[in-house]
Amino acid sequence: MESQEPNVTKSPLMYSNRVPVKTILEGSTSDADTGFIGMTVVVGGWVRSSKEVRKEPVSPPSPSSSPQMAAGAAPLGTKDVSCVEILQSRIPFFRTIIRVLGGSASSPAVRQKLESLIAKPPPPSTFFLQINDGSSVSSLKVVIDSAIVPVLAGQILPTGTCVLAQGVLEKPSADEKQTIELKVEKILHVGTVEQDKYPLSRKRLPLDSLRDYPHIRPRTTTVASVTRIRSSLDFATHTFFQNHGFLHVQVPIITTTDPEGFCEKFQVTTLLGEPSKKEASIGVSDADGVSLETIKAAIKEKSSLVEQLERTDSNREVLAAALQDLRKTNELAKQVETREKSKPVTAVKPDLVNFNADFFGQQSYLTVSGRLHLESYACALGHVYSFGPRFQAKKIESTKHVAEMWTVEAEMAFSQLEDAMKCAEDYFKFLCRWILDKCSDDMEFISKRINKTVAHRLEYMASSSYDKISYKESVEILRKATDKAFETQLQWGVPLTDEHLSYLVDDHYKRPVIIYDYPKAVKPFYVRLNDDGKTVAAFEMVIPQIGTVVTGSQSEERFDILNTRIKEFDLSKDQYEWYLDLRRHGTVEHSGFSLGFDLMVLLSTGLTDVRDVIPFTRSHGKANS
Amino acid sequence: MESQEPNVTKSPLMYSNRVPVKTILEGSTSDADTGFIGMTVVVGGWVRSSKEVRKEPVSPPSPSSSPQMAAGAAPLGTKDVSCVEILQSRIPFFRTIIRVLGGSASSPAVRQKLESLIAKPPPPSTFFLQINDGSSVSSLKVVIDSAIVPVLAGQILPTGTCVLAQGVLEKPSADEKQTIELKVEKILHVGTVEQDKYPLSRKRLPLDSLRDYPHIRPRTTTVASVTRIRSSLDFATHTFFQNHGFLHVQVPIITTTDPEGFCEKFQVTTLLGEPSKKEASIGVSDADGVSLETIKAAIKEKSSLVEQLERTDSNREVLAAALQDLRKTNELAKQVETREKSKPVTAVKPDLVNFNADFFGQQSYLTVSGRLHLESYACALGHVYSFGPRFQAKKIESTKHVAEMWTVEAEMAFSQLEDAMKCAEDYFKFLCRWILDKCSDDMEFISKRINKTVAHRLEYMASSSYDKISYKESVEILRKATDKAFETQLQWGVPLTDEHLSYLVDDHYKRPVIIYDYPKAVKPFYVRLNDDGKTVAAFEMVIPQIGTVVTGSQSEERFDILNTRIKEFDLSKDQYEWYLDLRRHGTVEHSGFSLGFDLMVLLSTGLTDVRDVIPFTRSHGKANS
Repeated sequence: MESQEPNVTKSPLMYSNRVPVKTILEGSTSDADTGFIGMTVVVGGWVRSSKEVRKEPVSPPSPSSSPQMAAGAAPLGTKDVSCVEILQSRIPFFRTIIRVLGGSASSPAVRQKLESLIAKPPPPSTFFLQINDGSSVSSLKVVIDSAIVPVLAGQILPTGTCVLAQGVLEKPSADEKQTIELKVEKILHVGTVEQDKYPLSRKRLPLDSLRDYPHIRPRTTTVASVTRIRSSLDFATHTFFQNHGFLHVQVPIITTTDPEGFCEKFQVTTLLGEPSKKEASIGVSDADGVSLETIKAAIKEKSSLVEQLERTDSNREVLAAALQDLRKTNELAKQVETREKSKPVTAVKPDLVNFNADFFGQQSYLTVSGRLHLESYACALGHVYSFGPRFQAKKIESTKHVAEMWTVEAEMAFSQLEDAMKCAEDYFKFLCRWILDKCSDDMEFISKRINKTVAHRLEYMASSSYDKISYKESVEILRKATDKAFETQLQWGVPLTDEHLSYLVDDHYKRPVIIYDYPKAVKPFYVRLNDDGKTVAAFEMVIPQIGTVVTGSQSEERFDILNTRIKEFDLSKDQYEWYLDLRRHGTVEHSGFSLGFDLMVLLSTGLTDVRDVIPFTRSHGKANS
Repeated sequence: MESQEPNVTKSPLMYSNRVPVKTILEGSTSDADTGFIGMTVVVGGWVRSSKEVRKEPVSPPSPSSSPQMAAGAAPLGTKDVSCVEILQSRIPFFRTIIRVLGGSASSPAVRQKLESLIAKPPPPSTFFLQINDGSSVSSLKVVIDSAIVPVLAGQILPTGTCVLAQGVLEKPSADEKQTIELKVEKILHVGTVEQDKYPLSRKRLPLDSLRDYPHIRPRTTTVASVTRIRSSLDFATHTFFQNHGFLHVQVPIITTTDPEGFCEKFQVTTLLGEPSKKEASIGVSDADGVSLETIKAAIKEKSSLVEQLERTDSNREVLAAALQDLRKTNELAKQVETREKSKPVTAVKPDLVNFNADFFGQQSYLTVSGRLHLESYACALGHVYSFGPRFQAKKIESTKHVAEMWTVEAEMAFSQLEDAMKCAEDYFKFLCRWILDKCSDDMEFISKRINKTVAHRLEYMASSSYDKISYKESVEILRKATDKAFETQLQWGVPLTDEHLSYLVDDHYKRPVIIYDYPKAVKPFYVRLNDDGKTVAAFEMVIPQIGTVVTGSQSEERFDILNTRIKEFDLSKDQYEWYLDLRRHGTVEHSGFSLGFDLMVLLSTGLTDVRDVIPFTRSHGKANS
């Protein structure tokens, strides 16, 4: 980057000379002052849209008369320095051209190309670019007069081109919508686009097509808004919990404890080796080696048997049989060899794997939930929360679940089911209010382009009270629903499906509902058994159009009952000894909940598929970066 | 929990009736008012220490005269309600006893036990407990008069016992250090301890022994302090970046891209199956099945060959040989069977595994670094950061590295090496200052008990300026170091080892140093090549007594050079196509860095081993929860 002249306005966003577009636009809407009008600033961003307006042909200006040549340039007319050399040494834009043309400036071919460009300057034009740098929904209008700043239209106009430019902020002519624009004096950098390969060259690609380009899609207005809202919800989460005396605990991602008992999990291993070129190849195990070698030895044996038969002059029949046998054994050897060399392993029975030799000396998984680990900190420090990625190896495609999702978990000692419900509701409302307060520009964009009702819904959810009904009551309501035929026939004990929940919140209550006291069989083993012996102290917070966003519970603090529940769920007790310790020593009533963070982003943005709100989605068959 | 009387002071920590110890202690040190003295509150926590003081024997008071019986109790002397029944129905403490004695109150055995307890009350004592709830380094003194609140000493005195009690806050007698204590009127819950099994029954277990009890150790003062400092640094991180216009991006944990090129990685798979009892067993693959079956078929063949030989009246020698052959093949079959049944797979050559059948249809890993993914968001939205777990499958034990560590990564578009160095330094100083400002109690404890110099060092690091030297300069300094003989002989191009770095910051500069412009071979492929063609725009921030805490770089924004570097590193180009897209379309100068969060906690707490500051450490052979 060029060193800046002293009068360039410094950026409030540090660690870069540029001024964010947001700062400029917000400054210019202030009635109190004239904002940034008249200031010289550096602005960087990517072209969202552009147009070129041809000027009436005039005699082309000499390139050396452009303003950036004025300060410190070699005196005009110096004969021993070629025009090209002056340009090379002074104007970063031309350096960019040289780079783009594919060579160093000193190569004769490039020099020729460059001279041909300069010899025939394009007809003068004005380029109007809408530049966006991700700081705001809105873009800044950037005006480049090719008579003043030489530029190749084909290079700077395409959508996605990166431009870093210095100029003066001016008030546009009265008929413009925008209140400020940048009149460019100097272009500091251009990052071109290969238009035929660039996925965003086509206008308004639908969201599902954008999923194939997770690394490019944040350049769209929608995904940029989603990212800003997501980041804001993230900070809101930490703010809420830290302000309420919760400590953040980073629970482990790799675990040997299964917190749910009925989830498909990913295994973490180093047994499958790496196709690394730098490492010594991880050999076939001894056991594997033996089998092939032993068979080869057997063949050798058999060959000698055949020889022996031949020597002893046995009848042809026996010899033929022996030869056939040898051939078969050879075939067997080939089969085993083929299997070991090319037929790949598609599943290894876990009983056959020596997990003692794995990195952790035992089978280990990606965590499904951090709540069990979090409990150990709650049972020492009171109020704790965690916020991190959780994993489920579900193969079914869904708009609400993918393999890797971020989850907020909270756990509170000396608290009961109602406390967890209250905390979850307050936290959820806090998030809704936060988005309305802090992301008004993005919400405006969403209302216009994605979903008109989101802001209204967030406002309603932030301010209304939520109905609390027991599972039993919800079953009664659903059984009375004569206007709706459900796929799953409902009776007490059956898990509520998406269509049941949708009926309750979308049709019946028309607002968020908290359902509590579930049948014990449909909730994890650690949920506290109620006095009826049939239900457990679990709850779910169900949100219209989304479904369950929060699941929570009071944990079983009684050692004997927890122990029984582990047996009932047919879980390996060894795995839970550490967890039982929390009841063995200084047990305490405690409760907590998990919030699906990606679902929270979904409902805040009015989108309908989590794959559009997660930066790099991982789902069955899909993890391409 | 019992419903509270209306005069109980409500907790400022919501979602629990209890008042945190910190609130009480801070309220009582205020000079402006008398704090909480005289108020009735509920306090919960775990016993840190205790003593029992026997009173002079007096005539034992009738249990029914205890104060908690006064309000709403059945009139004294009612004959048809036994004393035990009144106690059962009114006093939660006795319900706890009943629970602890292992039965329901109605069982005759329990009733007998309980009556025997009441019949012979223990001699009156005063119990003094120091109760800690994790909100503060300090504990609250809790005083229980057994004459007023009947309690079993053996049950409530052991370290680690959980107590939830209601009482009045009083000023202790003048000779006490503490300014406030709780005079208990009612015990709401007791969670007992199995003393012989409780790891913290032994006083002051060293930190390395505590590592075996990650679920219990947050109950120690040291690990509780570490947790509070860690949580505070966490919030400081989000505060710093959000205040500087960075967006938080949750980069993926599961990845198919290797960001370093020379790290040992964990594989994520579903091929190894699960030993789940609920799922259909994942079968041995066809290939595996074939081998044993085929051998069995071969044995059958051979048996018939032997029969044939017997029938054809061959000579004994041939028959014996054939029998021997059969025996050998049988042996082979047994070997294969044994291998498949009990000899476990210890390593599978990756070439042999069909990753098309794996969950993601290809080999996938736990991420080593999120910077590559983060770049794609920087190249759209400007300033971004991520904060999450990163993984390396290094088998070497170390006090500075384990398998799962949390890392903060920042990436800035339109920025260069110096910008990243400046941002990293500011962020680091912000963290140091934050800890000094927000965690003064914990820092005081650390100064007293762990490390006297930490606060001073944090103060110094927050306020001093850091030397910036090139790798070349650092090599020159080290080569001139005549007072030190290094294990690795230094010459340009060699990576700096821990002992080199230690010499530079601990002996030579005696303060943090930033080293930049490293030889290109010792840094990842994506670091920007300097004009000398030999060095790259990387830097490391090295901290006295800790080592490298931050690594950063300007990324290579030039397509051709990046492409060449990928080839030089012998990396699979396919894997990096998406990453190259960021240079193909609208490329931009950008830089960033990673901070090892666990190391930051280490230097803030004065501890020396990361395994003491990570909640649940994962390292080679160790992941027991």
